[in-house]
Amino acid sequence: QAVYEHLGKTQRTLDPELEQRIEQTKDLQKRYLQLLQLSRSFTSFFNQMTTMQSSLAEAMNDLAQKEPRLRDEFTCNSEAQKTIAQSAQTLMNALNFFLSTMETLCEKTIEDTLKTVRSYDQARLQYDAYRMDLAVLQQQGGAGGSASEFQGRLYEAEHNCQTYKSKYEQLRDDIQVKLRFLDENRVKVMKKQLLLFHNATCAYFSGNNTALEASLKQFHIASNDGPSFLEQ
Amino acid sequence: QAVYEHLGKTQRTLDPELEQRIEQTKDLQKRYLQLLQLSRSFTSFFNQMTTMQSSLAEAMNDLAQKEPRLRDEFTCNSEAQKTIAQSAQTLMNALNFFLSTMETLCEKTIEDTLKTVRSYDQARLQYDAYRMDLAVLQQQGGAGGSASEFQGRLYEAEHNCQTYKSKYEQLRDDIQVKLRFLDENRVKVMKKQLLLFHNATCAYFSGNNTALEASLKQFHIASNDGPSFLEQ
Repeated sequence: QAVYEHLGKTQRTLDPELEQRIEQTKDLQKRYLQLLQLSRSFTSFFNQMTTMQSSLAEAMNDLAQKEPRLRDEFTCNSEAQKTIAQSAQTLMNALNFFLSTMETLCEKTIEDTLKTVRSYDQARLQYDAYRMDLAVLQQQGGAGGSASEFQGRLYEAEHNCQTYKSKYEQLRDDIQVKLRFLDENRVKVMKKQLLLFHNATCAYFSGNNTALEASLKQFHIASNDGPSFLEQ
Repeated sequence: QAVYEHLGKTQRTLDPELEQRIEQTKDLQKRYLQLLQLSRSFTSFFNQMTTMQSSLAEAMNDLAQKEPRLRDEFTCNSEAQKTIAQSAQTLMNALNFFLSTMETLCEKTIEDTLKTVRSYDQARLQYDAYRMDLAVLQQQGGAGGSASEFQGRLYEAEHNCQTYKSKYEQLRDDIQVKLRFLDENRVKVMKKQLLLFHNATCAYFSGNNTALEASLKQFHIASNDGPSFLEQ
């Protein structure tokens, strides 16, 4: 049947609205998977950056002991890096929760619906094949065989066609329900996750404020020629 | 001479104070090279993280178009990531300046002094070898040869010893000057660089404040069930 369709020799059963919703869902899965992949990379680089900041804090603390004349400078830098690295844990927790929820959404929830879509496609192919068998038989009429034999074959073809039509329609209904649930579920889950992602990101990239401002203040006391340099 | 010293068969010329300063300088070079390596890794991960944030901003902006019911959530996240990625450029510039200055310090300034130290070590070895030749000759006295031949050899040994002593002393003075300059230079350069590193880091990790707070505000208007979720 798929070959006939490909050759344009037969007409496939079409539900344009449903097909469009299926295509949209496939497109969304692709985009969410891409978002998941980017978020994973972001989390990984963020994590490695934080590890480096902890190591920097340690190395600078050691140098503060070895370079008496740079003790204040190394100490302030060490403290700042330590503060930033510590506050990273909250963002890491949020990112890991985001990733695991996105994984479930992409690889289980959406995938489950698309598995039903593949069963539906298969049922649609079978139904169309039996439908075409029946049409051919009806077109041929009883030519070249006995009337009872023809009636038998016609009856069987009608029966098959009906069975696969029911199966097809059942799966079509299933998908419509699943797609509606998926829409609701996806929007609900992502609303929460995007809020979490946003708030945790903003908190980290702006919220180290108090601790870092204290560090800046301390630094300006420690080094008198401080602020002017940055203005260059 | 090095072999004799290793076997404990001869005494080396020692300047304990200078030796200690040389060892300190070698130790500092090692520590600064380690700091440079960590800073390079930090810069690299930071840069990759920022690239991912730009990509996330784009992907989320696309999804804002494809998911009408999540438009606000995706838009706010996209804006926040874009803001953070943009402000990263200032920190990147500061980090690259820090790295290039640290490279010059470790691989040129300190290395140049340590090259003189190696010439000094070589001259010290040569001087000690000629000094030992002379001592052996003086101990043997004229035994087994004519007096004029012995005088000739003694004169030559004294001359060599004196020549290499001058060379050794010249290099020792050179090093003392170089180490003093290196100390001044290193402290001056690092004072500036550490201030730059600190201020740029603090500015980035706390200074996205205004833009991100605006984004947070916008988000709380967009999503009513917002803040409560994060409190869970």
